[in-house]
Amino acid sequence: MARTGRRPGQTQTREDILAAARKQFGERGYAGATIRGIAAEAGVNPALVHHFFGTKDQVFIAALNIPINPLALAETILDGPREEIGVRIVRLFVGFWNDPDIAQTFLALVRSVAGSPQVAELIRQFFENAVLKVVGAELGIPKLRLAGAASQMMGLAMLRHIVGVEPLASATDEEMVELVAPVIQHYFDA
Amino acid sequence: MARTGRRPGQTQTREDILAAARKQFGERGYAGATIRGIAAEAGVNPALVHHFFGTKDQVFIAALNIPINPLALAETILDGPREEIGVRIVRLFVGFWNDPDIAQTFLALVRSVAGSPQVAELIRQFFENAVLKVVGAELGIPKLRLAGAASQMMGLAMLRHIVGVEPLASATDEEMVELVAPVIQHYFDA
Repeated sequence: MARTGRRPGQTQTREDILAAARKQFGERGYAGATIRGIAAEAGVNPALVHHFFGTKDQVFIAALNIPINPLALAETILDGPREEIGVRIVRLFVGFWNDPDIAQTFLALVRSVAGSPQVAELIRQFFENAVLKVVGAELGIPKLRLAGAASQMMGLAMLRHIVGVEPLASATDEEMVELVAPVIQHYFDA
Repeated sequence: MARTGRRPGQTQTREDILAAARKQFGERGYAGATIRGIAAEAGVNPALVHHFFGTKDQVFIAALNIPINPLALAETILDGPREEIGVRIVRLFVGFWNDPDIAQTFLALVRSVAGSPQVAELIRQFFENAVLKVVGAELGIPKLRLAGAASQMMGLAMLRHIVGVEPLASATDEEMVELVAPVIQHYFDA
């Protein structure tokens, strides 16, 4: 067997850990769940959870099947002139919807958030702990302004992709950037 | 019986019309449903539907139990200096959530929109026909910019009231006005 291939049983172990994570996050919430608890639930060593997934944030992302790496995301957003951060963010998020896998996950996530107080609570905790604290600190802007920017992107997703309001729904990605980037830039600059 | 009182049976007739309207809007969508069709479904004269509710928009609003009069809304928004329209809009919408009846309806509406493609389609048609066309024409701004402003208010409602993200959730109404009014103003001015 080649050393670079996955060992037999590895895929099953990963799936077991993700199932345990979904159970733990569902029962204890994002803040209450721990790598140790997830490992115990899955019957594996905590080191194995770290090995497969990394931090608790990353386990959460993997468990929810969010096909986006938040660290790569932050890098893309931070990599470039500060005065073009609005353009970079809107272009990035608008582009996500062109990937059918990501679009499907986003739709499920927005629907879950709106339909289930439990999922909403999970997302809230993840959002506050992982996204607002980290990105806000990195960029040195108040959490309230960052949350304002996030609310704009969330509302755009709702009206453009879930409700499908025209002319938002059929506008091009670049029309979206032109429309919304100044608003995101305002939140980061003001 | 006093001439100003409601005749016996009027309340039942109103309820019958609203039930017929929900059925017709559900089956035919906002664009396909007609006052005539709703009247036929309820077994009453179309003039009675007009008498009780007014236009198709107003029947839709009443059928969905949206406790807001869009005409009164438009007046409040338009009544004042153009350069303060962002402040007026944000203060008005943020204030709605302090009324438990309105808050309950908004929550149900956002949840329905996210959970049901049929409700989303109804809201989409209502939004495009009644809100964007009318308000956009009145204010002389492009529908795309108006939809951008609406997406900001929708996203704010999602994160502040449904997901409950801090510090949005516990910020005061005036902090919300300070945060978001410049964005709404931008959409109306640019």
